[in-house]
Amino acid sequence: MLKTNRERLKKNIELFSQFGATENSGVTRLSLSREDILARNKLKEMCEQLGMAVTTDDMGTMYATLQNSSNNLPIVMGSHLDSVIKGGRFDGVLGVLTALEAVQTIIDEDIELNHPLTIVNFTNEEGARFEPSLMASGVLSGKFEKEKMLASTDREGVTFEQALKQSGYEGEIANRLTDAHAYLELHIEQGPVLEHYKKEIGVVEGVLGMVCYDITLTGESNHAGTTPISMRKDSMFAAMQVISVLQNKLKQLPDDLVYTIGRINAYPNIHTVIPNNVIFSLESRHQDPTVIRQVEQIIFDLPKEIENCLLSYTKLWGRDTVHFAPEVVDAVAASTDELGYSSHQMFSGAGHDAQFIAGFIPSTMIFVPSAKGYSHREDEYTSYEECSKGADVLVNAVLKVAEKSISPVNSATVN
Amino acid sequence: MLKTNRERLKKNIELFSQFGATENSGVTRLSLSREDILARNKLKEMCEQLGMAVTTDDMGTMYATLQNSSNNLPIVMGSHLDSVIKGGRFDGVLGVLTALEAVQTIIDEDIELNHPLTIVNFTNEEGARFEPSLMASGVLSGKFEKEKMLASTDREGVTFEQALKQSGYEGEIANRLTDAHAYLELHIEQGPVLEHYKKEIGVVEGVLGMVCYDITLTGESNHAGTTPISMRKDSMFAAMQVISVLQNKLKQLPDDLVYTIGRINAYPNIHTVIPNNVIFSLESRHQDPTVIRQVEQIIFDLPKEIENCLLSYTKLWGRDTVHFAPEVVDAVAASTDELGYSSHQMFSGAGHDAQFIAGFIPSTMIFVPSAKGYSHREDEYTSYEECSKGADVLVNAVLKVAEKSISPVNSATVN
Repeated sequence: MLKTNRERLKKNIELFSQFGATENSGVTRLSLSREDILARNKLKEMCEQLGMAVTTDDMGTMYATLQNSSNNLPIVMGSHLDSVIKGGRFDGVLGVLTALEAVQTIIDEDIELNHPLTIVNFTNEEGARFEPSLMASGVLSGKFEKEKMLASTDREGVTFEQALKQSGYEGEIANRLTDAHAYLELHIEQGPVLEHYKKEIGVVEGVLGMVCYDITLTGESNHAGTTPISMRKDSMFAAMQVISVLQNKLKQLPDDLVYTIGRINAYPNIHTVIPNNVIFSLESRHQDPTVIRQVEQIIFDLPKEIENCLLSYTKLWGRDTVHFAPEVVDAVAASTDELGYSSHQMFSGAGHDAQFIAGFIPSTMIFVPSAKGYSHREDEYTSYEECSKGADVLVNAVLKVAEKSISPVNSATVN
Repeated sequence: MLKTNRERLKKNIELFSQFGATENSGVTRLSLSREDILARNKLKEMCEQLGMAVTTDDMGTMYATLQNSSNNLPIVMGSHLDSVIKGGRFDGVLGVLTALEAVQTIIDEDIELNHPLTIVNFTNEEGARFEPSLMASGVLSGKFEKEKMLASTDREGVTFEQALKQSGYEGEIANRLTDAHAYLELHIEQGPVLEHYKKEIGVVEGVLGMVCYDITLTGESNHAGTTPISMRKDSMFAAMQVISVLQNKLKQLPDDLVYTIGRINAYPNIHTVIPNNVIFSLESRHQDPTVIRQVEQIIFDLPKEIENCLLSYTKLWGRDTVHFAPEVVDAVAASTDELGYSSHQMFSGAGHDAQFIAGFIPSTMIFVPSAKGYSHREDEYTSYEECSKGADVLVNAVLKVAEKSISPVNSATVN
């Protein structure tokens, strides 16, 4: 089995962590910011030094391709260089640098593949400067309208289009990724599962489907001191009762369902006033669409009146589960086993560019552990050893995938 | 029994509702604002026309006194002319205008009392422009330090001291209310109890004691999609469980206990992130200090760890129950009965200047109904008939109080 160069990968992670470095060892590298452009420039320089041809498409997504004598479709690896504000030094960038490490290892070992290799850096995965997240892969996959994306503005009123033009990374629509033999994205897990089960590699079968609802309780505001309990329409206690009902019913669904009430707002939110409105979000994710439908049914079955308050709900959004290409997933699993690394088959709870790319290219992801499940914070952490094991799996999976014939994506079953 | 002039009272309520009138029949008359000064000027003019001597003290509180040949202490009536932003046309001002109506009726009927009569307009009862509320009566009673009050600033950065000097209503410390035969304050109920029981007059025995706590649950933020339920430290679900425990235990206390969770804040309050902190207020009021202590004991007995989250609490404030002077309360009750008006003995759940004045002058309040319990809103409503019945009770209670010898306030039992 091929092994990547642990020291070189470590050096590269440390090098890229300087682009937008924060005081507390984190990174702020917003999409198309000065820091992002410096990181892009460095990636371009390093890829060109390896003899790769670097192009960009009309959304600024970068492709570095190591051509060879074959006329086959490329095998694509990568992720994104942008980060959230005060994010960590692994989220996204690790997928690009392990791809670079895989290419370097293949060059070092003088391996002749029957597919070109492409490293991709998707523009604006985080959506932290320009909403929405997954912007460039969303346009590639036809999920997002390009014109709307170009008009997205940051907090200073700069549009994505302006930032893209100024960056020097606006390229041709003809350079877009439209087809490939396979796409492999290595990423930190952003959850505690691998650490909890003491596994080194997450073999990712897909991305969880999800729904998000806002649930609103409407009562009546009145003076907290003068209104007897029996005469109240207290939307706070109504909300508490609804949440209790929700929790009891959700607990009865499969153990691997996740559900979160992340946001709650009471109005007028003053300690001496009975709230007339409480609005909270309920977000839930699971791989099985029938379970997601059960979650929705629990919401639909909530009483429309509770504690003298009216209940209503709004669906904010949902997405279907994305299943990754079995042949590519299997290549990752087999490589992990053959390397002697421990693994855990899992779905990604978080969204990634791969979920959109999987709509038209056979894709999968490789997860490495996130200490304490932390991500999008300066103390997000994956050891260099864990990063390297991920790179080992990536390069060997690429070799396996290169030898395989892979069924084309049946887009009807993916989304 | 004396009856007041219903038409005159109505005319005066409508007249004063023009000072700071809002589009929706409400009033915005912030303390010492232009609108408040116009209302003060009109009150001064009307009182002087009745032969009353008008003075102000060092906090701008106005006193209009109808002297007579007696050397006895005055009987004081009144409330406040200031309002909240978009408040109603009854809260506060009705206590001043019914006092004026009582004086006018006594003059009309040529009744010779053995006490002077004083109408008082306390400065800044609402605290809506300058915090805290009950500012002037708080200084009079020694609860608040005058220097701190003078330094209180509004949203434009104007201090109370500046506004007071500019108003022309800054007077002498020698004019402060320090003693009186009795103090009677008529006010809208600001609650739904009188309307619910179809009673015309609230005979107010005192002001409820209260406590207010902030309760904090501290867990850990993590990604809502990637963190299995069993590995979470979800402060939202912990808070829900705490609230459920609180509600179940509070329900077992006497029915007339009120408790409110008026404010809740989750952090970071994003639908895709498990909240690491939820902070909510619990405010509770009851006349019996042992019941309030039971409420506090319920808070003290909460588990310090719940659903893997830590619980802590902070007491924001509390006040003891204020018991009004029985002789003055009895005069109100007897007048109501003799007038043939229906009544309900009750405590005030809201705070009023009378709660501070009761610390050094035998005091009580008279409540008239608030439609739907609304107050501090433009649609707060008490019919003119209900207002007039309140004025009738006030003037007759004054006549009764004038004939009574009243025990001095034992300040040790009041606060």
